[in-house]
Amino acid sequence: MSVPTLKQAPVQANTRIMGVGAYRPDVIVTNDDVCQWIDSSDEWIRQRTGIVTRHRASAGISVIDMAEGAAREALQKAGIEASELGAVIVSTVTHPYATPSAAASLADRLGATPAPAFDISAACAGYCYGIAQGDSLVRSGAAKYVLVVGAEKLSDVIDNTERTISFLLGDGAGAVVIGPSDTPGIGPSVWGSDGSKWDAIGMTHSQLAIRDAAQPGSGMSAAEAAVTDAAVWPTLRQDGQTVFRWAVWEMAKVAEQALEAAGIRVEDLAAFIPHQANMRIIDEMAKKLKLPETVTIARDIADAGNTSAASIPLATHRLLQENPGLSGGLALQIGFGAGLVFGAQVVVLP
Amino acid sequence: MSVPTLKQAPVQANTRIMGVGAYRPDVIVTNDDVCQWIDSSDEWIRQRTGIVTRHRASAGISVIDMAEGAAREALQKAGIEASELGAVIVSTVTHPYATPSAAASLADRLGATPAPAFDISAACAGYCYGIAQGDSLVRSGAAKYVLVVGAEKLSDVIDNTERTISFLLGDGAGAVVIGPSDTPGIGPSVWGSDGSKWDAIGMTHSQLAIRDAAQPGSGMSAAEAAVTDAAVWPTLRQDGQTVFRWAVWEMAKVAEQALEAAGIRVEDLAAFIPHQANMRIIDEMAKKLKLPETVTIARDIADAGNTSAASIPLATHRLLQENPGLSGGLALQIGFGAGLVFGAQVVVLP
Repeated sequence: MSVPTLKQAPVQANTRIMGVGAYRPDVIVTNDDVCQWIDSSDEWIRQRTGIVTRHRASAGISVIDMAEGAAREALQKAGIEASELGAVIVSTVTHPYATPSAAASLADRLGATPAPAFDISAACAGYCYGIAQGDSLVRSGAAKYVLVVGAEKLSDVIDNTERTISFLLGDGAGAVVIGPSDTPGIGPSVWGSDGSKWDAIGMTHSQLAIRDAAQPGSGMSAAEAAVTDAAVWPTLRQDGQTVFRWAVWEMAKVAEQALEAAGIRVEDLAAFIPHQANMRIIDEMAKKLKLPETVTIARDIADAGNTSAASIPLATHRLLQENPGLSGGLALQIGFGAGLVFGAQVVVLP
Repeated sequence: MSVPTLKQAPVQANTRIMGVGAYRPDVIVTNDDVCQWIDSSDEWIRQRTGIVTRHRASAGISVIDMAEGAAREALQKAGIEASELGAVIVSTVTHPYATPSAAASLADRLGATPAPAFDISAACAGYCYGIAQGDSLVRSGAAKYVLVVGAEKLSDVIDNTERTISFLLGDGAGAVVIGPSDTPGIGPSVWGSDGSKWDAIGMTHSQLAIRDAAQPGSGMSAAEAAVTDAAVWPTLRQDGQTVFRWAVWEMAKVAEQALEAAGIRVEDLAAFIPHQANMRIIDEMAKKLKLPETVTIARDIADAGNTSAASIPLATHRLLQENPGLSGGLALQIGFGAGLVFGAQVVVLP
């Protein structure tokens, strides 16, 4: 069969992050607030996690609302109109609809229609996964500008009375625009997964447990189903020890690989922006990477808690606000979380 | 500040689909079965939808199980070891856990660790969205081989007694491996969204309705809430007229744009593989595109129903099984669904 040759979109050699936006929701939850629900203290929480407050969103504020707030600022900072976007990516695990995606609604609100829009599920590595995809879409010629948003309303999927993860978590959204560049602004992504640790962070149980308990034929009355362990709203849990060890040992190696892939030494960095999971993990990683004192370390967690896919862009936003001189410098960013999954890149700060 | 230049991964000029796999689950649901739940007839359903049967998965079979079945065949057909994969993408809206992703577990089961793994949410356009991303990841040098899976257990999110969409839907999974190629095997993706029609297909209500009804103070447990009218398990609905009109009018234009972007005429096509939403939509699109009789049209829907993100790879798999001579020919594929979102490409059939 004689088959004509398919045309291909022209490739784009280099990309960069053009602007970053943040949305920090309205409710401030202090450690004293947390201690109404778990037996702990402000001092213990600060010492063990570095968290002083976390922001959480009121009932009326959705993942899409927060994503919109962050996206509008990112577009404005990048000097790009929403109508110029070639793709809208929302990284989230807390959009409470199986379908449609948060991204399709966000694109409509922003005026980005008909840009392709989709959500990705990669937990606390979701922002770095989004950067990897956005970078590839621009470099391969599939899009000129890509909006990457990390947006989470984790307060919807926590149980305030449990102690493994809930007290660490906050809500929020961060966003960036990726676009073409004269020089390389995003280094190669070092990203991956280890699904053998799928159980280390995740939900208490499948959403289907609720449905099954309420099915006709389940053999259970509503009252009976109500008292089974299986029939409660699924919430997040983690095996903190496993995650801590993995983050400190394995993620430092991933960070080093990202430096190597970009051809960069730690001395070349202006900033280190890890996922804001726990201040002790940040400190341990910084130590293992032997970061010189000239490298500014993002510590947004103190104010924001762990906001999963939103944490790195939120931390980047604060870093640039507090240290405008970092703009144009190199930052090593690394996300890691439920899956387990991880992703790291060296980027030029916008 | 003197900033060293970041290294970049070498780009790959061309990509192709290397192999396709399918998983069709165990339970066959006939139109007579459907008519136990809704007032209809085998004849009416065949005339209006072209569907004769749909496959659904038993309770013990998960989205990940189906994805694994399809992925193993795709890898075998492609002649690729799982350990060679540079990314694992699962397109699904029916993985019943907020986190971790189905993809992280799938990568572990296949032996693809430490490949990056993530789920995407783009409904019935999810397979074509995955192809767009997989193609970009390979072309940009971010991955050598990418596994793209569409996997859905839609039977978990339907209400058999409603008539707008449930009786159309089936379960299943399809998968392909994308890799480097000497000649272009995947044309430019024409993909997009129209979030102003976010309500045209989607869930009856937010998952949070169940949780909120079960909050302390509501007087209801989650299970009790699940059986009240106000807070039942969310299931799929569509505004069939809106979707039908959009699919027939707008999607034919998108299909033409995909041909144009690839530099191809309808006469060059060996096959047309649209999302298997409804046989009447397939017929109307074929008419609008003026497909010559030489173009084989995928009609897997008769046996499989509408399997959302799985429908195009499932239909491709059947087409190649029934017509091995199509291998090496050009196929126009187009997905469209909740969001609303759409994606189309011309591809060389593996």
